[in-house]
Amino acid sequence: MPYERVDKDMSMMKSAGITTIRIAESTWSTLEPQPGVFDFSHVDRVLDAAGRFGIQVIVGTPTYAVPSWLVAMHPDVLADTPKGHNRYGARQIMDIVNPSYRYYGERVIRRLISHVADNPQVIGYQVDNETKYYDCVSPDMQRLFVKDLRRRFDDDLDRLNAAFGLDYWSNRIDSWEDFPDLTGTINASLGSAFDRFRRSQVSRYLAWQAGIVREYAREDQFITHNFDFDWGPGWSYGVQPAVDHFEAAGCLDVAGVDIYHPTEDDLTGKEIAFGGDMTRSLKGGANYLVLETEAQGQNGWLPYPGQLRLQAYSHLASGADGVMYWHWHSIHNSFETYWKGLLSQDMEPNPTYEEAGRFGRQIAQKGVGERLINLRKRNKVAIMVGNDSLTALDWFSLETGFPRQQGQISYNDAVRRVYDALFELNIECDFISDKADRSQLGRYVMVLAPALYSTNEDMLKALADYVHQGGHLVATLRSFVADENLKVWHDKAPHLLTDVFGIDYNQFTRPGKGLTLDLHGSDQAGPACQGLIELLNPRPGTQVLASYDHPVWKRYAAVTRHDYGHGSAEWIGTLPSDQGMRMLLSDAADAAGLGGPARDLAGLVTVREGINALGEQVSYLLNYSSKEVRLEAPYGGHLLVADGQADSQAQVDQGQPMTIGPWDLAIIVR
Amino acid sequence: MPYERVDKDMSMMKSAGITTIRIAESTWSTLEPQPGVFDFSHVDRVLDAAGRFGIQVIVGTPTYAVPSWLVAMHPDVLADTPKGHNRYGARQIMDIVNPSYRYYGERVIRRLISHVADNPQVIGYQVDNETKYYDCVSPDMQRLFVKDLRRRFDDDLDRLNAAFGLDYWSNRIDSWEDFPDLTGTINASLGSAFDRFRRSQVSRYLAWQAGIVREYAREDQFITHNFDFDWGPGWSYGVQPAVDHFEAAGCLDVAGVDIYHPTEDDLTGKEIAFGGDMTRSLKGGANYLVLETEAQGQNGWLPYPGQLRLQAYSHLASGADGVMYWHWHSIHNSFETYWKGLLSQDMEPNPTYEEAGRFGRQIAQKGVGERLINLRKRNKVAIMVGNDSLTALDWFSLETGFPRQQGQISYNDAVRRVYDALFELNIECDFISDKADRSQLGRYVMVLAPALYSTNEDMLKALADYVHQGGHLVATLRSFVADENLKVWHDKAPHLLTDVFGIDYNQFTRPGKGLTLDLHGSDQAGPACQGLIELLNPRPGTQVLASYDHPVWKRYAAVTRHDYGHGSAEWIGTLPSDQGMRMLLSDAADAAGLGGPARDLAGLVTVREGINALGEQVSYLLNYSSKEVRLEAPYGGHLLVADGQADSQAQVDQGQPMTIGPWDLAIIVR
Amino acid sequence: MPYERVDKDMSMMKSAGITTIRIAESTWSTLEPQPGVFDFSHVDRVLDAAGRFGIQVIVGTPTYAVPSWLVAMHPDVLADTPKGHNRYGARQIMDIVNPSYRYYGERVIRRLISHVADNPQVIGYQVDNETKYYDCVSPDMQRLFVKDLRRRFDDDLDRLNAAFGLDYWSNRIDSWEDFPDLTGTINASLGSAFDRFRRSQVSRYLAWQAGIVREYAREDQFITHNFDFDWGPGWSYGVQPAVDHFEAAGCLDVAGVDIYHPTEDDLTGKEIAFGGDMTRSLKGGANYLVLETEAQGQNGWLPYPGQLRLQAYSHLASGADGVMYWHWHSIHNSFETYWKGLLSQDMEPNPTYEEAGRFGRQIAQKGVGERLINLRKRNKVAIMVGNDSLTALDWFSLETGFPRQQGQISYNDAVRRVYDALFELNIECDFISDKADRSQLGRYVMVLAPALYSTNEDMLKALADYVHQGGHLVATLRSFVADENLKVWHDKAPHLLTDVFGIDYNQFTRPGKGLTLDLHGSDQAGPACQGLIELLNPRPGTQVLASYDHPVWKRYAAVTRHDYGHGSAEWIGTLPSDQGMRMLLSDAADAAGLGGPARDLAGLVTVREGINALGEQVSYLLNYSSKEVRLEAPYGGHLLVADGQADSQAQVDQGQPMTIGPWDLAIIVR
Repeated sequence: MPYERVDKDMSMMKSAGITTIRIAESTWSTLEPQPGVFDFSHVDRVLDAAGRFGIQVIVGTPTYAVPSWLVAMHPDVLADTPKGHNRYGARQIMDIVNPSYRYYGERVIRRLISHVADNPQVIGYQVDNETKYYDCVSPDMQRLFVKDLRRRFDDDLDRLNAAFGLDYWSNRIDSWEDFPDLTGTINASLGSAFDRFRRSQVSRYLAWQAGIVREYAREDQFITHNFDFDWGPGWSYGVQPAVDHFEAAGCLDVAGVDIYHPTEDDLTGKEIAFGGDMTRSLKGGANYLVLETEAQGQNGWLPYPGQLRLQAYSHLASGADGVMYWHWHSIHNSFETYWKGLLSQDMEPNPTYEEAGRFGRQIAQKGVGERLINLRKRNKVAIMVGNDSLTALDWFSLETGFPRQQGQISYNDAVRRVYDALFELNIECDFISDKADRSQLGRYVMVLAPALYSTNEDMLKALADYVHQGGHLVATLRSFVADENLKVWHDKAPHLLTDVFGIDYNQFTRPGKGLTLDLHGSDQAGPACQGLIELLNPRPGTQVLASYDHPVWKRYAAVTRHDYGHGSAEWIGTLPSDQGMRMLLSDAADAAGLGGPARDLAGLVTVREGINALGEQVSYLLNYSSKEVRLEAPYGGHLLVADGQADSQAQVDQGQPMTIGPWDLAIIVR
Repeated sequence: MPYERVDKDMSMMKSAGITTIRIAESTWSTLEPQPGVFDFSHVDRVLDAAGRFGIQVIVGTPTYAVPSWLVAMHPDVLADTPKGHNRYGARQIMDIVNPSYRYYGERVIRRLISHVADNPQVIGYQVDNETKYYDCVSPDMQRLFVKDLRRRFDDDLDRLNAAFGLDYWSNRIDSWEDFPDLTGTINASLGSAFDRFRRSQVSRYLAWQAGIVREYAREDQFITHNFDFDWGPGWSYGVQPAVDHFEAAGCLDVAGVDIYHPTEDDLTGKEIAFGGDMTRSLKGGANYLVLETEAQGQNGWLPYPGQLRLQAYSHLASGADGVMYWHWHSIHNSFETYWKGLLSQDMEPNPTYEEAGRFGRQIAQKGVGERLINLRKRNKVAIMVGNDSLTALDWFSLETGFPRQQGQISYNDAVRRVYDALFELNIECDFISDKADRSQLGRYVMVLAPALYSTNEDMLKALADYVHQGGHLVATLRSFVADENLKVWHDKAPHLLTDVFGIDYNQFTRPGKGLTLDLHGSDQAGPACQGLIELLNPRPGTQVLASYDHPVWKRYAAVTRHDYGHGSAEWIGTLPSDQGMRMLLSDAADAAGLGGPARDLAGLVTVREGINALGEQVSYLLNYSSKEVRLEAPYGGHLLVADGQADSQAQVDQGQPMTIGPWDLAIIVR
Repeated sequence: MPYERVDKDMSMMKSAGITTIRIAESTWSTLEPQPGVFDFSHVDRVLDAAGRFGIQVIVGTPTYAVPSWLVAMHPDVLADTPKGHNRYGARQIMDIVNPSYRYYGERVIRRLISHVADNPQVIGYQVDNETKYYDCVSPDMQRLFVKDLRRRFDDDLDRLNAAFGLDYWSNRIDSWEDFPDLTGTINASLGSAFDRFRRSQVSRYLAWQAGIVREYAREDQFITHNFDFDWGPGWSYGVQPAVDHFEAAGCLDVAGVDIYHPTEDDLTGKEIAFGGDMTRSLKGGANYLVLETEAQGQNGWLPYPGQLRLQAYSHLASGADGVMYWHWHSIHNSFETYWKGLLSQDMEPNPTYEEAGRFGRQIAQKGVGERLINLRKRNKVAIMVGNDSLTALDWFSLETGFPRQQGQISYNDAVRRVYDALFELNIECDFISDKADRSQLGRYVMVLAPALYSTNEDMLKALADYVHQGGHLVATLRSFVADENLKVWHDKAPHLLTDVFGIDYNQFTRPGKGLTLDLHGSDQAGPACQGLIELLNPRPGTQVLASYDHPVWKRYAAVTRHDYGHGSAEWIGTLPSDQGMRMLLSDAADAAGLGGPARDLAGLVTVREGINALGEQVSYLLNYSSKEVRLEAPYGGHLLVADGQADSQAQVDQGQPMTIGPWDLAIIVR
C-alpha cells in the first residue's frame, strides 16, 4: 500500500456489501522477513480493522511463494524441471516434497495459525493456493516415485517392464539401481505413472498442511483450498492436469475454487458453470466457495454494465456460497499490475466497484440472500472425467497419436465440447471421477464419457452394469482404449464393452478437410468431423445414427446407439463440431427421456436450478447476451430478482410474459 | 506381446504371402538385460518358429537404442548436442564414437551374431538402423575433428584460417590449443566441415559393424542397412542431411531403405520412386531392399482399398527386391503405439492385412514374381546431389542468405522440385554424387544440378567436359557458387562455367510477391518465381528462354540455354513453381531428344520401366488417383497384372484400349 | 581477401568518389593473433595505400569480437545470459564489465592507436561498434548492480522493498546477502532497474574506450561510435532498447550511426529520416556520420536504379556529413556472406557500385557538396522518448498488461506510429530524452509523448509548465502511468496532469475486433483503434475530438484537447491506425499553427529542409516512389540537383512546373 488507508478500505468494502476477506496467502517474506524472525503486525492490523468493521476473515497459509532468504540458504527448495533448475522470482517454483521447504513451511504455518486462531473474525483457513507439482523432476521426487513403483509392483521388475512396455526401444530396467532419470522418457506408461504419482503428492501436501492447521483451528473454523483448472485456453477451464481434484479435496471441509473467464462480448456463462459444477462435485454436491474471481480482470475483460452482477448471481446458481474478488485493489508494481481488482490503482470508486456493491446490497436485503445460499442440485446427468485420460491424450494426441503439439485437440477440448453442448441445451450436470465408487453411477439417468482413454477394468464392468440396469451411456471416440497404465487393450475395441455398444473397430484415420457426418433420418446439413474418425463396425441390432460423408469411409458407422439390458449405449466415433455435438446430445437426451421447461428454453436463456434450504425450487433465468430476451415465465412463484432489482415480495404467474434485459437475469422461487 | 502367439503370427504371415521377417534390431536391453548377462531366448523362439513355418529372417544388430544399465554405468555414451547432454529415453541419442558405447556394442553384436549365424533361416544381417551422428558435439567428436583438420591442412593454421575465412569477426585460430568449442560457431565453412566429418563417422561406424558381422556371417548371408531420408516434410523424402549415403553404402552387400509417405488422397508415388531411385543408385544400379514401409502407418495414412497393393508394386517398379512392413502388429504402449502395423492392437485380420495378402499371393503365383524381381534400369537422366550443398543452404538460406528458418526453402525443396517434375513427365532418373567419378557422367543424356551450391573444381571441369562431349546439363539457381569449403568463388559466376552456360551474373534479389516468368515464344501464363531471382547477363549466342515479368528486372535473363561443344547447358535462375519447373524441364527434355511412349503418357498414368532377369522389358502403368483411367496400350505383350489381378497368361496388343481402376495398375512384359 | 588487390580497390574507390574508409573494427584476432603478439601489417598496408591514393581513414578499436585465445584462457569473458553461458563464435557475446576482457581490450587498443595516431590519413576513431550489454547477467554485472542499489537507496532495504513492490509474491529482500539471482525475477521494477543499470555500463564502457583513445589521438582527430536502433522490425528502426543513446553519446566528439532499411518497392525514406533525426538529436543538433549503410544489403534489398543515390542524398537531408557503405566488397565465407557490399564476390563493377559513383561524383562537383554538408535544422516539433518506457511496455504489454509476446505492440510501434505520421505530413522533428533539461522543451511549438509510460515527477511538472507557457503537448495512451521505478501512480491518472489535459480515467480495455474512432465534426470513416482503449472522462471545458464507436464504451471520450494556460494539451486514448494517427496529428498541427509549403506538399513528395553553412535555405524534394511526380516549385532559387544530375548553376522560379522522376529528387537552395 502506498499509504495507510485500512479504515477507508474497510469502509468502502462495507458499503459494497462485502462481508468476508481473505488475507496472508503468499506473504511469507512479509511474515518472516528473516529466518526465525516473525512479524505478524500486517496481519494484526487487518484483523483489528476487520473487527472494528465486522468483516470476516479467511487466513491463508503463506507457502505459495518462497522468500529470498530461504532460496539463498537452501537452493534445492526450487524445483528441477525438464527445463532445468528453477530460478528465483515467481510463485509456484518449489519442490513440494523438499524437506527444507517443508521444515520452514511448517514453522511459519504453525506460528501464523497459532497467532490468529483465537481471533473471532477468523472464520476459516485456506491451505496454500492453487497447489500443483510444478513439473518437478527433482531427485527426491524421482526417488519417491521409484519407491512407490517398488511398492506397487511388489519389487517385481518383470511385471513393471511388462506393464509399461519397456522392452520397446531397449528401455527395460532389470535392476533397480539402473532406474533412469525420467526427464527424457519416451514411454507414455512410465511418464503417466510419474504424473499420477506427482498428483498424489499434491494431495498429500495439502493434507499435511490441513493437518497442521487443524491442530490450532477452532471447531467453528473451516479449512478450504483454492483449486483452479486448465489454463490452456488463456483462462481457467477444464480438468486440471496436475491435480486430482477429487482426491485432493478429501482433506478439506469446504471446496474452494478460482474461476476466471472472458467477459464483454465473450461472456458465455460456461466457465462459471463448469467451475461450479466441478467444484460442487468434489464434496458430493456440497456448496463451495468462489475464493477468487475477476473484478476488472485482465485487459479486455472489463465487465460491461450488468455483467459483474450477472456473474455473481451465476456463481450462486451453481451452488456457490460465497463470491470473492481477486483482488480488492490493483497493485502498483511487480508482475500482476494489470490483473486489476475491484479498485484501480487510484483506489477510488469506479463502475466495477459500484456494480459489485449493487449485487452486495441486493443479496443483503431481507428475504433474498438466505433463499439463494445453500442451493442443492439434483442433476440427472453426469460427465465422467479422469486425469490419466488427459495425460494419455497429451502423449497420444487424438489427431496424430504422437505427443500433442500446441494447437492440437486436447482431452479438455473433448470434455468441453460435451460440457458446452449440455450447457447450451440447459441440461445441468455433475462430474464423476473415473475412480469413483460404482454406486455413484446409479444416481444418473445419463452418463457421458468424452475421450475417456484410460480406465481400469472395474470401471468398465461398472459401466456395463449401469447400462444393463437402465442407464444411458454416451461415449465419444478414444474412450476405453487402454488400461490404467495406458496399455492398449489387446482384444476387440471397445474392451469389455463391444456387447454393450454393439460395435467393434480396429481402424481409424484423420477426417481430412471438410469431412462431415451424414445424419441418418435427418435433412440437416451434416456437422463437421474433427480430429479423428473411428471406422465403426455395427453389430446386428445396433442403430446407425450417422455415417461419414466420404467416398471410401462411408461404409463404416460414425455414431451408433444400442439397447443393452434395460438401458442403451451410444458411441460417437469422431469429435463433431460444436453444433454437431449439440444436435447429437439433444437427440441422446430425448432418447433418455430427459426433458422439461429448462430444455424448452435452451437457446433463449440459460436456466440453472436447485433447492434452497427452505426446500423451495430456485430457478435462475440468465441472459448471457447483449440483447433483451422475451419469454413466458416457465413457472409461477416469487420473482425474487428481476429487472436489475431484488424484491422478496414480487410474484410471477406461469406463462406470464417477461423480459430479461442484456446481461441481466431473473430468479423465480417456488 | 501381451500373450504367447508366435505360431498364430507365423501362420497369419504365411497366409499373407510373407516370406521374410526382420528381428532383433533395437532390442539390446532384452538381449542383454544386465551387463554381460545375455538372453537370446526371444531370438531363438522366433527363429525356431520361423524354421517350422519356412520363413526367412534378417537379424539386426541391436545398437540403435541403449539399455538403461549402460547409461547408468557410462553416462557419456549419451551424446552432447547443441541443446545439452542428452537424456535417457529415446533411440538415437548416443555418441557413436564413444568408446564405452563401442565396447559394449561390439560385445553384444559378437554374442548375437555368433549365436544366430549358423541358423538356416538367417539369410542376412542389418547393421544398426537409420544411423546418423545425432548432432553429437561431445568432446571426443570435436577432438577427432580437430585431428582430422590437422591432417587435412598439414598442421598449417594459416591455410585453415584462409580456407574458412576465420579472420571474420575475429574468429582466427592461431594455435591449436585455442581451438574453440564448435557449438556456437557462426562460421559456415567450419560448421560445414564439422558436419562432413561427422557424416564420415557414420560411414566408419557402419563399416565397423559390418566388419564385426562379417567375421561370423556365412558366405550366403548378406549385410544391409536401413537408410532413411530427410524427415523435414513429415515423412522420409529428400537427401539425408546427416549421412553421405553414397559413401556409407560402401560397406554393404545390399542397400536397404525405409520409405514412408502419405496415403489416402495424398498418395502420389513420388516418395516411393524417389526413395527407390536414390537407393538403387547407391550400389551402381543394383537391386535393393525396402526394409521398412508403412502398413497402416500413422493417423491419416490408412490406405484406401487398393493403395497398399499399388504401393507394393510401385516399390518393385523402382527396382526393389523385397518389401517389408514396419511392423507386423501395432504395439500396446510406449512411444510408437500409433505408428500402426499390418495388424491393429487387437491382432486380428483387418482390411490392411487382407490387402497385403492379396499382393503377397499374386506375386507368389507362378510366372509373376520371378518376372518382376531383379529389375534393371537404363535411365538416360541423372540428378547430381551433394550433402555439402544441403548444409550450405541451411547456413545460407536460398531466400535470405542467412541461417535457414523453419518454413524457408531448403536444398531438398529444390531437389524435389526437379525430381517431382521429372516424375510427372514420366522421365525416370538416377542420382549421382557430387563426388562421383567423372566417368559416370558419360552414361547420361541429361544431367540436372539443382541448387548444387558447393563443388570442387574437378567436378566443375568434369561437367564442362561432359557438355563439351555432347551432354545436356541443366542447373538451377545457387549452383556452383562455392568451393568444397563453402567459400564463394571470387571471379565471375558461375565459376569455370561462364563459357559453358554462356552467362554471368553478380547480383540477385528476392522475387517479391507475385513475380512470374515471362516465357519467350510462349503464350502460356508465366509460372511463379520463388525464393530468389538471379539477374543473369546472357552472352552473345546464348538463347534467353525466359525473363522476369518485372518493371526493373526484366532487363535480365531468367532462363538461358547455350550450345557448348557438342552439347548444351541450361540455367534456371530462379526456383519456378511446380508447374513452371515441369514446363521448363519438358522443354529441356525435348531439346535433349528425350521422348518416347512413357513421356506421351505423362499426366495420365505413371510409367516405370526396366529389364527383368529374362531380358524382358517390364512396363508398369501406375494409376495414383481415385479416378479410373482409360488409355491405349503403349506396348503389346504379356499383361502380367491388370484389373486388380495377376495372370501370367494374359496378353495385350499395342493400341488396345485399357482401363486402369482407381489406385490400380497394369504391368506389360515384352 | 582471396588475393592481393589493395591498389585496385583504392583505385576503384577513388573513381567512385569515395574519400574515407573505416578499418580495423572487429579484427582483434588478426591484430593480436596470440596474446601479446601484435601484427599491424594489415593496418599498415591499408594506411600506406590510403596515403598513396589520398583517402582518409577512420580507425576502429577491435573489441567488438573476441579472439579464440582469449576465450580459451578466460572463459568468463563470455557473458552469462538468461539462456546460459555464451558459446564462442559470434560477435557481441562478451561481458563488458569483465576485468579480463577489459585488461586485454585496453592493451590492444593502446597498441593499435599508438601505432596509427601519427598517420596523416587517420582523421578519427570509432570506439567499439554497436555496443550493448548483450543481456549479460554474469555474477560481476549483478554484484555491481547490487552495489549501485545500496548507493541509490542509502543501504535502506525497506525503501527498496517499497519502491519496487517486493512484498508481492514474497519477493522481499531483508538482508543484502539474500539478494537473489536476477535472471528469473518477475518484478518489473527490479528488472527495469537492472536494465537501466546495464545501459549505464554501456555508456561507461564507451567513455572508458574514448578516454584511452584520447591519450593518443591528435587534436585534429575525432572520436565517434556507431550506434544502431531496434532491430525488431528486421532492420534498424526505433529507440534502442539496450543503450541510452543520449547518455552514451556524451563521450563522443561526433555521433555516428548505422542505418539499414528495406529498398526496392519498400523504400519509404522513413528509416533514413528517423535514424538521422535521432542521431542529430544526440549532440544538440550537430551533424553526424552515417558510418554504415547498405549497398546491396541483404537478399531483397538490391536497390532499383536511382535508389542508392536517392538514399545517399536523403542522409544529407537529415544532417549527415558523411555516408559510408558497409561494406566495400562482399566477403567470401563466414556468417555475413550475403550482407553484400558495394562489390559482389567477383569484385568487379556492378550497377550498385556504378550508382554509388554517380552520387560520389555529383557531390564532388564544385558548388554542390559544400552547399549540402553542415546542414542545420530548426525544427518546431519534438518527440520525447525514454528507455524506461520501452522496458515498461515489454514487461506490461500495451495490449495485455503482461510480458509482451512476439507480435504484440511495442513501445517502438507507438513511437513509430507518431514518427511516421509526422514524416508523411512533412513535419520534421527532433527527439528529446525524457531525462532532458527542461529548458529544451521551450524550443518547440509542439511536443509529442507517445506511450511515455515512465517519467519522474520533475518531467511531469516541466511538461505542465511547458503547456502553461504556450506549448502544445500531445500524449498518447499509456503515457505518464508510472514513476521512474515503474510504480503506477496511486492517484487519478494522468498523475499531476489531470488539470493540464482536462481529463481523468481509471479504466481501460481491449478494443475488440473492428472498433473504430468516431471523429466528432467529421464525415470521414473513423480509423481503427489498436491495442488498448482508455476510457477517458473529460472535465468541463475539455473538447472531445473523438469517442469510441462502441455500444457501451461510446459514453467515454477517446481523444481530447484542452486549453491550459497559454497552450493546449491533447490526449489520444488509443493507438489509432496509421491513417488515423496521421489525421489526428494533422489536426493537432493545425491547432498548433504549424503549416507551410512543406506540409502542403505532403502526400506528393517528401520535403526535408535546413540551413547550410552559407546561411542558405536548402530544401530537398524527395520522391520515394516508382512514379514520376509533377508539382510546382514551392520556392525559387538554385536548382542544385534535378533530373538525376547536379548543376550548381541551374535556377528555378517559385511556381514553375517541375517533374521528379521515380526514386529521384530535387534540391532547391535559396
